[in-house]
Amino acid sequence: MNQFGLLFRLSVFGESHGTAVGLLIDGCPPGIDIDEADFVEDMERRKGKNQPGTTPRKEEDKPVFLSGIFKGKTTGAPLTIIFENKQTRSEDYEKQKDIARPGHADFVAEKKFKGFQDYRGGGHFSGRLTVCLVAAGVVAKKILKGVVPQAGIQARLVELGAEQNIEHGLQKALNAGDSVGGIVECTAGPLPIGWGEPFFNSVESLISHAVFSIPAIKGIEFGAGFGAAKMFGSRHNDPLMDASGKTSTNNSGGISGGLTNGNPLVFRVAVKPTSSTPQKQHSYNRVSGKMEDFSIKGRHDLSIALRVPVVIEAITACVLLDLAMINKSVSQ
Amino acid sequence: MNQFGLLFRLSVFGESHGTAVGLLIDGCPPGIDIDEADFVEDMERRKGKNQPGTTPRKEEDKPVFLSGIFKGKTTGAPLTIIFENKQTRSEDYEKQKDIARPGHADFVAEKKFKGFQDYRGGGHFSGRLTVCLVAAGVVAKKILKGVVPQAGIQARLVELGAEQNIEHGLQKALNAGDSVGGIVECTAGPLPIGWGEPFFNSVESLISHAVFSIPAIKGIEFGAGFGAAKMFGSRHNDPLMDASGKTSTNNSGGISGGLTNGNPLVFRVAVKPTSSTPQKQHSYNRVSGKMEDFSIKGRHDLSIALRVPVVIEAITACVLLDLAMINKSVSQ
Amino acid sequence: MNQFGLLFRLSVFGESHGTAVGLLIDGCPPGIDIDEADFVEDMERRKGKNQPGTTPRKEEDKPVFLSGIFKGKTTGAPLTIIFENKQTRSEDYEKQKDIARPGHADFVAEKKFKGFQDYRGGGHFSGRLTVCLVAAGVVAKKILKGVVPQAGIQARLVELGAEQNIEHGLQKALNAGDSVGGIVECTAGPLPIGWGEPFFNSVESLISHAVFSIPAIKGIEFGAGFGAAKMFGSRHNDPLMDASGKTSTNNSGGISGGLTNGNPLVFRVAVKPTSSTPQKQHSYNRVSGKMEDFSIKGRHDLSIALRVPVVIEAITACVLLDLAMINKSVSQ
Amino acid sequence: MNQFGLLFRLSVFGESHGTAVGLLIDGCPPGIDIDEADFVEDMERRKGKNQPGTTPRKEEDKPVFLSGIFKGKTTGAPLTIIFENKQTRSEDYEKQKDIARPGHADFVAEKKFKGFQDYRGGGHFSGRLTVCLVAAGVVAKKILKGVVPQAGIQARLVELGAEQNIEHGLQKALNAGDSVGGIVECTAGPLPIGWGEPFFNSVESLISHAVFSIPAIKGIEFGAGFGAAKMFGSRHNDPLMDASGKTSTNNSGGISGGLTNGNPLVFRVAVKPTSSTPQKQHSYNRVSGKMEDFSIKGRHDLSIALRVPVVIEAITACVLLDLAMINKSVSQ
Repeated sequence: MNQFGLLFRLSVFGESHGTAVGLLIDGCPPGIDIDEADFVEDMERRKGKNQPGTTPRKEEDKPVFLSGIFKGKTTGAPLTIIFENKQTRSEDYEKQKDIARPGHADFVAEKKFKGFQDYRGGGHFSGRLTVCLVAAGVVAKKILKGVVPQAGIQARLVELGAEQNIEHGLQKALNAGDSVGGIVECTAGPLPIGWGEPFFNSVESLISHAVFSIPAIKGIEFGAGFGAAKMFGSRHNDPLMDASGKTSTNNSGGISGGLTNGNPLVFRVAVKPTSSTPQKQHSYNRVSGKMEDFSIKGRHDLSIALRVPVVIEAITACVLLDLAMINKSVSQ
Repeated sequence: MNQFGLLFRLSVFGESHGTAVGLLIDGCPPGIDIDEADFVEDMERRKGKNQPGTTPRKEEDKPVFLSGIFKGKTTGAPLTIIFENKQTRSEDYEKQKDIARPGHADFVAEKKFKGFQDYRGGGHFSGRLTVCLVAAGVVAKKILKGVVPQAGIQARLVELGAEQNIEHGLQKALNAGDSVGGIVECTAGPLPIGWGEPFFNSVESLISHAVFSIPAIKGIEFGAGFGAAKMFGSRHNDPLMDASGKTSTNNSGGISGGLTNGNPLVFRVAVKPTSSTPQKQHSYNRVSGKMEDFSIKGRHDLSIALRVPVVIEAITACVLLDLAMINKSVSQ
Repeated sequence: MNQFGLLFRLSVFGESHGTAVGLLIDGCPPGIDIDEADFVEDMERRKGKNQPGTTPRKEEDKPVFLSGIFKGKTTGAPLTIIFENKQTRSEDYEKQKDIARPGHADFVAEKKFKGFQDYRGGGHFSGRLTVCLVAAGVVAKKILKGVVPQAGIQARLVELGAEQNIEHGLQKALNAGDSVGGIVECTAGPLPIGWGEPFFNSVESLISHAVFSIPAIKGIEFGAGFGAAKMFGSRHNDPLMDASGKTSTNNSGGISGGLTNGNPLVFRVAVKPTSSTPQKQHSYNRVSGKMEDFSIKGRHDLSIALRVPVVIEAITACVLLDLAMINKSVSQ
Repeated sequence: MNQFGLLFRLSVFGESHGTAVGLLIDGCPPGIDIDEADFVEDMERRKGKNQPGTTPRKEEDKPVFLSGIFKGKTTGAPLTIIFENKQTRSEDYEKQKDIARPGHADFVAEKKFKGFQDYRGGGHFSGRLTVCLVAAGVVAKKILKGVVPQAGIQARLVELGAEQNIEHGLQKALNAGDSVGGIVECTAGPLPIGWGEPFFNSVESLISHAVFSIPAIKGIEFGAGFGAAKMFGSRHNDPLMDASGKTSTNNSGGISGGLTNGNPLVFRVAVKPTSSTPQKQHSYNRVSGKMEDFSIKGRHDLSIALRVPVVIEAITACVLLDLAMINKSVSQ
């Protein structure tokens, strides 16, 4: 189901080359100021701000409010925002639809949806849909600001193509004429203690669920993460320092027993290289029934990782807001 | 909410030192043979089979069927199974409750539940609850066998305390007198193409959500995972080899666009070291208001990682069964 | 939450005098032919087909497909349809917003949404939103036709203003210059045996949940309904006649133990009179702080009951389709 | 799915002649005093207090707390309560299982669950399960008392077998040697304004959904209900009297636009006659393949309606508590 959240419930819809992509938020509190200007900065960040290595397809990404806004404020009714698709060049996709592009969803979408899927530009599977996640994040961050005014969420690219120097990593990819992956780190806090639930709605469960909805994410780790697997317990454990819950180390990434523990929430995600590499590829042609060489048409990023941080922030804001609302509901 | 799954819906309940722990499965199909003997092997695996480094607390872990079973078969009505707690030694916990144990949920549970939580042995946060996950897995695997008869799920410990030789890793921990973490790899297949949904119910989203409900898991990666972040796209992409969807490499871990792609599902999880290390620790005493040295009482594992594989298999079976049921429902 | 259904999941959004009203269907199977013409008949029925007593506001009610349709067929991705609001005359509402209109949601909406609600024409509470329910029904009926080809759903007005002769009832209201209520009966079948669940997802639970989402519905009864409360058991019980499940009477309305029993599903709903009566009314003015006489402005129906049958059919189709999909998913 | 509620989430399980019936509450706030004595009064009311016309099967109905209670208070973790079945006489059911009892779920359960259902005493479909609803109500009422201290919920039998004098109605049934139906009215308040949601989660939707999970309920109406269908709008509309929302009449039953409006919530439900009438019946024998006369074995009520009021109160308390928690979560 294309939906996430219990009380702040987000649905996304649309296809890369269809009329529009959009989002529906159910559970948005009333009285939040929302206007077009609120979206500009995050939309620009998602577009990569003309950095080398980002797609030349430049959509305006201007939000159109269909419902839930009245006189510039949310009404409390379902909020629907769409972003029209204007810069589509669908003919690129008609030509290459006989070969399922490696790394893309073309082949599985064809099987799952029995050939009825919109195959142009990945259709509903496209990274284009992340514009909806970013928009949801804009709304969620605004509301969250009223709930936990001090809390900030920052995601940044910490490694590109094995290089911690992002420029080097990008240059390496440009030199190789190949797409490349990266690692994004996200920090959020300060957060109240006790958000989340033991077991199935742990903070790790919810964040990872949301994060893996972003195309191209293939790993996540909290705090020391995979490093924790190599540690002894006496080193990994974060000693409590005082009654506020502050710990001297933060190997747990701000989560104990699935709940926020008052220390900064820290996680890292692995972003795979853009599937649409400029390199020539070899894959199965379902019409000819043979393996064939081919090159990807269309306009693409060298690294999605450059554009992912704002999406990670957005989805994290949605999860945290949902947790804030749930937490508020049960306190006596 | 302590619940997971859309159609095969699992709830767990109970506390480490309470009357019992248990599970409720809603959506269990009728006519599945279930008896006590079905649980023996997986329960033994979860107990670590007397391997050095596993807890001396040995519960019988015998399932008691409260509902949903009639004449040895599931009825289709809600299935409730409990496991009585018999080997509790709660006095250990009364003594040390003034110091929140580092790495445990004691401190956050106290805050979230306002002092009303059952603090004995971690209460509802205890790893004891994984017996319920394993039991759910026993049921899910049986049903899954009827849906995808060829599919197997295997999880195994591939690294302990930075050692790929598990015996070495364990010996290192025994020598150090310290607990230790590890990495578990899980493989499942062959699976049909197209299970899962784009965006919020991607296979990665659902598996990670479920896996992070297991205490001590701090990271997950699918296929090449964090390694993918260092790769070029031309190397990472898995070329399709034929009409069956088979690819020559499996960097995607069997998932494309959030859907199963017909290749083996592969993921690895990072297990942190057992929080209850035999080492002396230093943490905040909320009664004295000072940092104090203390040693953990109670009976504990040197490495939970030794016991986690069967839990990972169980939770994976639950996710795959839910996906199988959803997939069946929408096909025309 | 503005959402209904487990597998065929419907959300509605929009306001009476906003840009548009719309619906989002998550879980729509791929390959269903959908075009504008499919909506004409049901949209006309909802408009009352120029029958006396229906509102002079005539929206075109032409569906605009935003997502989930490609080459005239559903793709399996979320389906979004909007209906633009073109014939709004919002100035009517600006004038009378100081007096909460009796029978309408104005007062409670103001309280719930803290004054931020779109008050024009009832905003999100408007009967205008039933266009979305009807549209969902058009889609659901098409899919259902593929699942249970023989099954039909018919709802019709059986009583208007206490008259079984609808023309008489309407004339009585026209003569009185007042709005009037009515009773709609819905029949569906033949349906397979065993749809629904014991307890919380009984067929009665799901149908009533859905039906009471239609503004103006104030009662529902299945089979003999309130009449059953006056009967002896020996008369109420429906004797089984053969192995097919056919019963000689149908006092149960086709539902036993919460499940479809193979006999026609029969229920009746009570529709209250349109709140916007042409009669002068007396109510509290929140600005003057006094009770005042006033007359409703705007364009309204004498009886919503005339337009409700197609909405009942639509919502019933959505429930039955969801049940069909759930039922299919669990069968072994 | 055997579950109800968004934040106060109730599951029920068990069979009439199995080991036990029980309930699982997820989302129960911590710190609520719960002990065995809290259940006595409502359990007695459900048993009918030895009134003529109630079943001679007298279970002790003593709650056994399996989880979520520590030192006499709820912990915030999932709360599980079971009621053991001790007075079962299953041999009654073995004898008559070839004839599906008219009015019961026997036939549909057999079809839905393919013969694997527990047929003894109706199994999971039994009215015995209402002990779980009553228990949930005991817990919900206690919590609700802390949220809306003034609010009361009262349900009472207002008509039995067409008689408003309940004794007369009962005597009529005793004389006829037949089971009989009745009407129960429930009132709740005072409640805050604005609980519920427009459309799919209207108060009517949620209450009716919950109420129809009680076996034997076949109709529900709010406020003037079916009577509203016969009224003119000028009479049905409830004029607002002051800024508090009080109306001079309450034809809406305390609900406007799907939301509580500050006036008492009022609804009535139709209870069908007990299906197990003492009268001789005629129905299909699936073994002989013929229609046959038979008499119901087992111990049964003449009218379930006598025992239903406390169940209606319980389920209403669960719905109102869930609404209270949701409402609290979204207020800024």
